[in-house]
Amino acid sequence: MPPPSPGRTFCFLASLFRCINAPFVSTLKDYIHSRCKRVDAALDRFLPPASTKPPTVHRAMRYSLFAGGKRLRPILCLAAAEACGGSEANAMPLACAVECIHTYSLIHDDLPCMDDDDFRRGKPTSHKVFGEGVAVLTGDALLTIAFEITAKAKGWRRYSHAALVREVAGASGSLYLIAGQVADLEGEGKKTSHKQLVYIHERKTSALLTCSIRLGAMSANAPAAKLRALTKFGYNLGMAFQVIDDILDATKTSKELGKTAGKDAKAGKATYPSILGMKRAEAEAARYTHAANSALKPFGRKAARLRALADYLLNRQN
Amino acid sequence: MPPPSPGRTFCFLASLFRCINAPFVSTLKDYIHSRCKRVDAALDRFLPPASTKPPTVHRAMRYSLFAGGKRLRPILCLAAAEACGGSEANAMPLACAVECIHTYSLIHDDLPCMDDDDFRRGKPTSHKVFGEGVAVLTGDALLTIAFEITAKAKGWRRYSHAALVREVAGASGSLYLIAGQVADLEGEGKKTSHKQLVYIHERKTSALLTCSIRLGAMSANAPAAKLRALTKFGYNLGMAFQVIDDILDATKTSKELGKTAGKDAKAGKATYPSILGMKRAEAEAARYTHAANSALKPFGRKAARLRALADYLLNRQN
Repeated sequence: MPPPSPGRTFCFLASLFRCINAPFVSTLKDYIHSRCKRVDAALDRFLPPASTKPPTVHRAMRYSLFAGGKRLRPILCLAAAEACGGSEANAMPLACAVECIHTYSLIHDDLPCMDDDDFRRGKPTSHKVFGEGVAVLTGDALLTIAFEITAKAKGWRRYSHAALVREVAGASGSLYLIAGQVADLEGEGKKTSHKQLVYIHERKTSALLTCSIRLGAMSANAPAAKLRALTKFGYNLGMAFQVIDDILDATKTSKELGKTAGKDAKAGKATYPSILGMKRAEAEAARYTHAANSALKPFGRKAARLRALADYLLNRQN
Repeated sequence: MPPPSPGRTFCFLASLFRCINAPFVSTLKDYIHSRCKRVDAALDRFLPPASTKPPTVHRAMRYSLFAGGKRLRPILCLAAAEACGGSEANAMPLACAVECIHTYSLIHDDLPCMDDDDFRRGKPTSHKVFGEGVAVLTGDALLTIAFEITAKAKGWRRYSHAALVREVAGASGSLYLIAGQVADLEGEGKKTSHKQLVYIHERKTSALLTCSIRLGAMSANAPAAKLRALTKFGYNLGMAFQVIDDILDATKTSKELGKTAGKDAKAGKATYPSILGMKRAEAEAARYTHAANSALKPFGRKAARLRALADYLLNRQN
């Protein structure tokens, strides 16, 4: 029998992943829904009311933060805390902090001087509603409040407030999240190598996703070995997530995706399928998925939620 | 004899201030010069080298951070630490953090969608050199690294890292620094009341200046009463600084100022002289100066440097 094609390998691994997590699939939607609601409630508490002076910026912060985001990063943070035996109360400020960072990065990325997007999740982007100046300041305000919220988390001897702040600043700073956006901006319309694409996605997508998971573990005072395993899980999950995003962008219609399909290709941006071809891109997705799954082994049943979430993200169709 | 005019009151108080601090005037320039050099050296250590990948953003961070700023905020931070018996080593990370915040705010304020400035301190602004997208990201990177540097300061039981981060985030966030910029942006070309102008300057200028001084005191583990006194000093110094800035802008030539004179009036921005008239603006400057001076009384000789710095700032001619 010939070895299965990379595409088949990916489908096989994905199915296996689904089978292992079968008992949780039925309740996963409830889990995501309930966590989303709690994250929303916590964000609502952490943010100044919309009427706070000056109302423009506070309305704008809430407009983008409550614009229908999937709360992927905060939910992964809470699930990582759960996998390490921690409490939701301790993880919640950190979960909210990463969501503020994620939202600020989207507001700034959407600006005319960057990706120039008029819509996000079907709604006009911040600068279309509030003007460019206020949009820049709203991003700044969300980035700043992320650290204020981080300082509200519980500090441990092993993971002090200083360590938590360094974690958030490191993943969001000029060596990771911002580095990814700069490289992405500078790469537009130029020939991008596979190595460069990995560099961009490690920074633009994987770094903050890994940080969310690490912060969850840190909120649970996880020992170093568990933190290392979850770092590996986060990195590979983030990379698999991005490769699959590229594959979906190239293979699905705008209707199926719920957003403009083929946007990256039109913007002259490199994607996994455009650089490696579809088969090798699928093989990459399978490889990262497998590595993410392996990293969770030491956690046994405790990582059931994390596994189910990873399965859900990596088998999504939009 | 008629009571002295507000202008005369201001000049009298300024002269008195100069007399009190006379022994320090001769050495003040040396003090400022030596502290500037040490702040520059510390910033150089805290920032990634310019060649760090991606070099664009790291070059851009250093371009604006080493563009000839007066280091007013870090020097006040160090002097406040000295007044509370603290060490320069403990205050330095906080001094550098506020300078990063100040520089990020200038980069974003200069953007075409905000004040649209092509030059700052005689050099092309960040977006003129690196493009708007990179300028936005450079501001973001400096804001982010400010918190990373804050986390490197020494934490005390009284002023933990969480408290230090809250202090920086509070002064830079949507209720202060950003609120001031939003109100300034929204006030352009509109009639501004004295109350609104005070609101803007309290947030745009005084908040970060007060924060710098408070952080210096916190780095020295200052007791609550000293922190309160220095907060009062910082607030009044910041307000006096801004009123005097407005007066100089309206009375000096571009050559005397070393920057474009009358810029605020041209941009339709409210200033103290334009709202209150020159005499009342001078009286306001005198009132704030007097309040700043009074706040330092409990410190006696220990606040000599702070007094001399305040004197220098409030009697400047450009």
